[in-house]
Amino acid sequence: MKKDFSPRRLRELMRNGEWAVPTTGAAPGYVQANLVMLPQDEAFNFLLFCVRNPKPCPILDVLEPGQVEPTIAPGADLRTDLPLYRVFRKGEPGEEVKDISAVFDDTMVSFLLGCSFSFEDALVKAGVPVRNLEEGKNVSMYITNRVCRPAGPFSAPLVVTMRPMRPEEAIRATQVTTRFHLTHGAPIHVGSPEDLGIKDIEQPDFGDPVETRPGEIPVFWACGVTSTLAVTSAPLPLAITHSPGHMFVSDLLDDHLTIL
Amino acid sequence: MKKDFSPRRLRELMRNGEWAVPTTGAAPGYVQANLVMLPQDEAFNFLLFCVRNPKPCPILDVLEPGQVEPTIAPGADLRTDLPLYRVFRKGEPGEEVKDISAVFDDTMVSFLLGCSFSFEDALVKAGVPVRNLEEGKNVSMYITNRVCRPAGPFSAPLVVTMRPMRPEEAIRATQVTTRFHLTHGAPIHVGSPEDLGIKDIEQPDFGDPVETRPGEIPVFWACGVTSTLAVTSAPLPLAITHSPGHMFVSDLLDDHLTIL
Repeated sequence: MKKDFSPRRLRELMRNGEWAVPTTGAAPGYVQANLVMLPQDEAFNFLLFCVRNPKPCPILDVLEPGQVEPTIAPGADLRTDLPLYRVFRKGEPGEEVKDISAVFDDTMVSFLLGCSFSFEDALVKAGVPVRNLEEGKNVSMYITNRVCRPAGPFSAPLVVTMRPMRPEEAIRATQVTTRFHLTHGAPIHVGSPEDLGIKDIEQPDFGDPVETRPGEIPVFWACGVTSTLAVTSAPLPLAITHSPGHMFVSDLLDDHLTIL
Repeated sequence: MKKDFSPRRLRELMRNGEWAVPTTGAAPGYVQANLVMLPQDEAFNFLLFCVRNPKPCPILDVLEPGQVEPTIAPGADLRTDLPLYRVFRKGEPGEEVKDISAVFDDTMVSFLLGCSFSFEDALVKAGVPVRNLEEGKNVSMYITNRVCRPAGPFSAPLVVTMRPMRPEEAIRATQVTTRFHLTHGAPIHVGSPEDLGIKDIEQPDFGDPVETRPGEIPVFWACGVTSTLAVTSAPLPLAITHSPGHMFVSDLLDDHLTIL
């Protein structure tokens, strides 16, 4: 499947309903983002949750109530320009749709949060294997025993992604991803799934399992799905997120986000 | 004057009214912070202002309404444990006091923002001159022609600190301060005050002028005073900040804040 569209062209395809699949590997080199939309009454507490948990919830953009055009993608419309959305009511998952124009209103505040897809390209360039890309799968994600700092009604366990690699590659991966502090940054753990409360590495809570080869160890990064668990931890009348893996594609270059 | 107290002891002296002078060089190695307190009604917009302007307003801690004990200094009380406070009403400066217990109430939200005092120690250790420390003065601060991204009623020009040094020291200073992304990070400009709209480098808008020696160039960092201009840009019924240079001293080590 062709994936190397420009971000603008890709968003156009999504807007026309012609791209409703995950965005892994799409528009390579451009920053992708998790989306959270919620009523302005709880916007402060959710922003505070993100500020207090910057590793899983790095803030790329926050829009004014009712606004749909993000700073990081001029001309885009957050109501239509993602491939697939999930609507939640009172914290319970509802419909999965390609367009949320019918439910979004002037009281809704939109948050765009960093996504680990941004550093996978940099890992590959640095010679670090990204097994989920090699196998054409969604990355493995796990709910851990680590608890985020709550804010107002929002709480969540830390969710992580896992990529298996050799120990010397884990060191290189730490160097490479340290630069990407707005897309989860350095790993949060290496080596022992049980330390994170993960019982079976073969059975991720989200995404697909991938092969771990002899001599490889699991490397864990904070994951943006944490923000979805947080927003659905409160019984908000309405909340909207992207569907897992179906991210917003911005005009921002990954390399422009790095700290050095 | 003795300055190498522990943060806890220093806060105790402040609480007892026995330390009401600037905190430059005090409790070396520990993170100091700008303080902003404002009514919860505008807390979302102010938090958003900080998130949108992370270089001048890096967020270290945000407390629940009415709370006074920050995460970064267990046991501390933000109403008494700073050397000197400034109270603002409808955006206008009011009294300067050593204790704000009489004006702080349950509706107030406290923000602690990073301060460049945290990286001065690292600059000195790296062999970079910090002229204001050498001369025993407050750092030179200037209001620039750069405009911060506004949020709700809050807007401000970018305020910068300036330290003169030789060009090769400016390169080293960039390397050193890049690590300190939560205390303003890398410089925002080097060399040309006029590019920032600064007419006379000898006349800072805040703080003291310092000597620039032959062969030295001015190096500019984003400054937390930006947050004071932002909070007083809105006619809030009540706002409280630290007095310039009279910072909150936390239990957090500077070295624990660095990104690498």
